[in-house]
Amino acid sequence: MQLLKNYIQEHGTVLTDGVLKVDAFLNHAVDPKLMTEIGREFARRFSQEPITKIITLESSGIAPALMTSIELGCDFVFARKRKSLTMTDRLYSSQVYSFTKQQYSEISISKDFITASDHVLIIDDFLANGQAALGLIDIVHQAGASVAGIGIVIEKSFQSGRNKLIEKGYRVESLARIASLEKQKVAFVQEKTIDEGDTRYVRKNNPLSMV
Amino acid sequence: MQLLKNYIQEHGTVLTDGVLKVDAFLNHAVDPKLMTEIGREFARRFSQEPITKIITLESSGIAPALMTSIELGCDFVFARKRKSLTMTDRLYSSQVYSFTKQQYSEISISKDFITASDHVLIIDDFLANGQAALGLIDIVHQAGASVAGIGIVIEKSFQSGRNKLIEKGYRVESLARIASLEKQKVAFVQEKTIDEGDTRYVRKNNPLSMV
Repeated sequence: MQLLKNYIQEHGTVLTDGVLKVDAFLNHAVDPKLMTEIGREFARRFSQEPITKIITLESSGIAPALMTSIELGCDFVFARKRKSLTMTDRLYSSQVYSFTKQQYSEISISKDFITASDHVLIIDDFLANGQAALGLIDIVHQAGASVAGIGIVIEKSFQSGRNKLIEKGYRVESLARIASLEKQKVAFVQEKTIDEGDTRYVRKNNPLSMV
Repeated sequence: MQLLKNYIQEHGTVLTDGVLKVDAFLNHAVDPKLMTEIGREFARRFSQEPITKIITLESSGIAPALMTSIELGCDFVFARKRKSLTMTDRLYSSQVYSFTKQQYSEISISKDFITASDHVLIIDDFLANGQAALGLIDIVHQAGASVAGIGIVIEKSFQSGRNKLIEKGYRVESLARIASLEKQKVAFVQEKTIDEGDTRYVRKNNPLSMV
């Protein structure tokens, strides 16, 4: 997604070889125009999936997940990192390991809001080692629901998350794939496909909808 | 806002005399249609203010703040409850007391994203004792910026928050005002004004825009 890559180049800051700071538009300050386009792009990429629910993890996944849910016309739920006062229900929970914090934390979704008939799109702001995505997948499976795919705003392709998910058979759609952050410079993965308005999936499933 | 009141009556659960559970549509599962209307209603109520920025507090404020920022065409920033790995900047911080947790927590916004020229709308999901709103107001003042008002999705009018803010001279717009949660029943504050498309502020400032 070219617009996102432009934002990363113009407003992102490489802090170390592994850490990109994007709090100018994604996870602290949020650019509503960019977020609207991110929602549209995820909806376009997953338009052929009969998605009934979007799930994400608080806090930085909420904005892209909400915009995608508006485009797809489905509900969304954000998993909680901490149990709130009103989370009195039975919960689906999973342990997510943070490499940066070097500790496990528990993420939870109420059993009221994900059911066996759901076909779930998982959205998150970053994909690095894949721990958050795997935790959300675990919750979807606990509910007996199916995973439509994983939509990622920024993928650190030099880390292991994408391969872990692909090897397990999941479809991963990342709007920006970063090959390297070395020498304080963002290098993107070179992709052959046109990613804006990508017609790969439309073409495969329904030639008429391309008109 | 009648649509929101309907959601509260149909999908909310009174847990105790002080606690209303709305995780079916506001702060765990999120209804994107309702959230779109909430954004429109806040934008309508504050349409005469030259707002340059919306701020809120993670996590449950993010969805209503994002939808309002899309309607008003301004940026938004969510204050962090925990410092993230990339929050390396100088920060504006404030201590917010939680009556339920009986402890202080620090909320922060990077100095990069709020400046003295900003006219700031504060949005939050709940108003109870006003501590979160007062913390966000404190941050706006630290930046030398001005407060346009406080937009609240659900106000617990039987608690002290609204009066604290009004007494300090702030405009508070709450989309649903709850008078009582006693006997496991939600009773709303009876309001004289028409709250959908309320013309009070339009009328005052610009008669022509009513056409």
